[in-house]
Amino acid sequence: MILIKIGGGEHINWDAIANDPIFEKQEVVIVHGANAQMKEVSAQLGLSEQMITSPSGQVSRHTDIKTMEILTMVYSGLVNKKIVATLQKNNINAVGLTGADGRLWLGKRKHAILSRVGAKTKLVTDSLTGNVISVNAGLIKLLLKGKYVPVITIPAITESGELINVDNDRAVAIMVRDLKITDVIMLFEAPGLLEDSSDETSRLPTINAQELDVYIEKTNGRMRKKLLGVKETFASGAQRVYFGDGRIQDPITKAFMGKGTVIT
Amino acid sequence: MILIKIGGGEHINWDAIANDPIFEKQEVVIVHGANAQMKEVSAQLGLSEQMITSPSGQVSRHTDIKTMEILTMVYSGLVNKKIVATLQKNNINAVGLTGADGRLWLGKRKHAILSRVGAKTKLVTDSLTGNVISVNAGLIKLLLKGKYVPVITIPAITESGELINVDNDRAVAIMVRDLKITDVIMLFEAPGLLEDSSDETSRLPTINAQELDVYIEKTNGRMRKKLLGVKETFASGAQRVYFGDGRIQDPITKAFMGKGTVIT
Repeated sequence: MILIKIGGGEHINWDAIANDPIFEKQEVVIVHGANAQMKEVSAQLGLSEQMITSPSGQVSRHTDIKTMEILTMVYSGLVNKKIVATLQKNNINAVGLTGADGRLWLGKRKHAILSRVGAKTKLVTDSLTGNVISVNAGLIKLLLKGKYVPVITIPAITESGELINVDNDRAVAIMVRDLKITDVIMLFEAPGLLEDSSDETSRLPTINAQELDVYIEKTNGRMRKKLLGVKETFASGAQRVYFGDGRIQDPITKAFMGKGTVIT
Repeated sequence: MILIKIGGGEHINWDAIANDPIFEKQEVVIVHGANAQMKEVSAQLGLSEQMITSPSGQVSRHTDIKTMEILTMVYSGLVNKKIVATLQKNNINAVGLTGADGRLWLGKRKHAILSRVGAKTKLVTDSLTGNVISVNAGLIKLLLKGKYVPVITIPAITESGELINVDNDRAVAIMVRDLKITDVIMLFEAPGLLEDSSDETSRLPTINAQELDVYIEKTNGRMRKKLLGVKETFASGAQRVYFGDGRIQDPITKAFMGKGTVIT
């Protein structure tokens, strides 16, 4: 079983992903984002994205009730079903799920978050965010046994039935732990991890998982978050993480062949 | 196994549904609508609902590409996941699915629809609508075996991977046929089938399936459509259809006990 995490950028080529020969060779579980469409629909509904900056400088989405409603519409409705339809068109028997379905991603809500606003730190208490603490491995295995390809996205759900926003990359780490996955592929809108984020030719073909901290220090924004997730993924038992370009033909197979960045 | 179809009205009491003792006694499959929220979100996005009137006078939603996107957001995102969360809060292990997931509702698109506009009839060719032709009974059985409660809504999907809008009540008939279901419960915002639609005290406690045509003639709008679906449901092999009030406590159990309208 391999786990493929696919970013939510607008240039991700889902037709190419659905055409990748990997699906004939392996049991596949997909986790996806939908950031570009989230921005688009939020703007259409007149909701400007509010961000929270943690004391350590990590920026994340402030998910109040209204944002959670739009997030649920976009991630688990619009985008998840478009992906399912694209895979089905290519005879891949996809089943779209959120972390709420069957308590697939059981999470714990953060009831208060520190947010840095200028020189001050304020406490945010209305954010429906948290972390995945366990994965319903039984549901994934049931679907794989039935020859389905699970296609998973946010929201997650708490013990008390609240829908919460979680970081997909960190959810991947918990899936690796609870499903004992060794290989993870991460596709996004770059050829791999770049030495210089503004230069697509500066791809690093391989790095060692022990060096991750060095790169976490050097990067910022989404890539920093991704690398933090990768670090957790290794701590959860992954053996190899492959970064690959989600915009090209056969993106999964190429990432697997080391055409992106291989982290071991 | 019983199939429960729940309407998309704004006064449907999902907390009461999730508290109904039926879930401890029976294998349950839920099919739901989301009409009230669809109207609300469409209005927020500045999209006015366009309706098509068939030559026989049946009114249905004109589902162009933009409408299909909103429909997917609202039905399979916002509403389906809220229902899943409400059921999960009550320890019912719900899994939300659309007809697209695992080709659960495989449909055929109508490539041209006749629409009556005043005295004229025009041909509509951009409507992403159709009918369910078969149900993936294996996926439902797989989930029921795993002790999950499938919670299903539109869209359906075609052989070529197009998402299409279908009539939920007619989809129920195909589910009855392919899953060999004998008992169907339909909850909506009325105490049952009413002799006079404006008088909630005019409930008909029982009617015979052979009499359905009489009532189809007498009713119009959503109830007429529902009765047409019920007729198909009997033709598909159902033994009993129970209409019940979705606004009250223990709505499923009460419908089963004959407190609404029992059609045999």
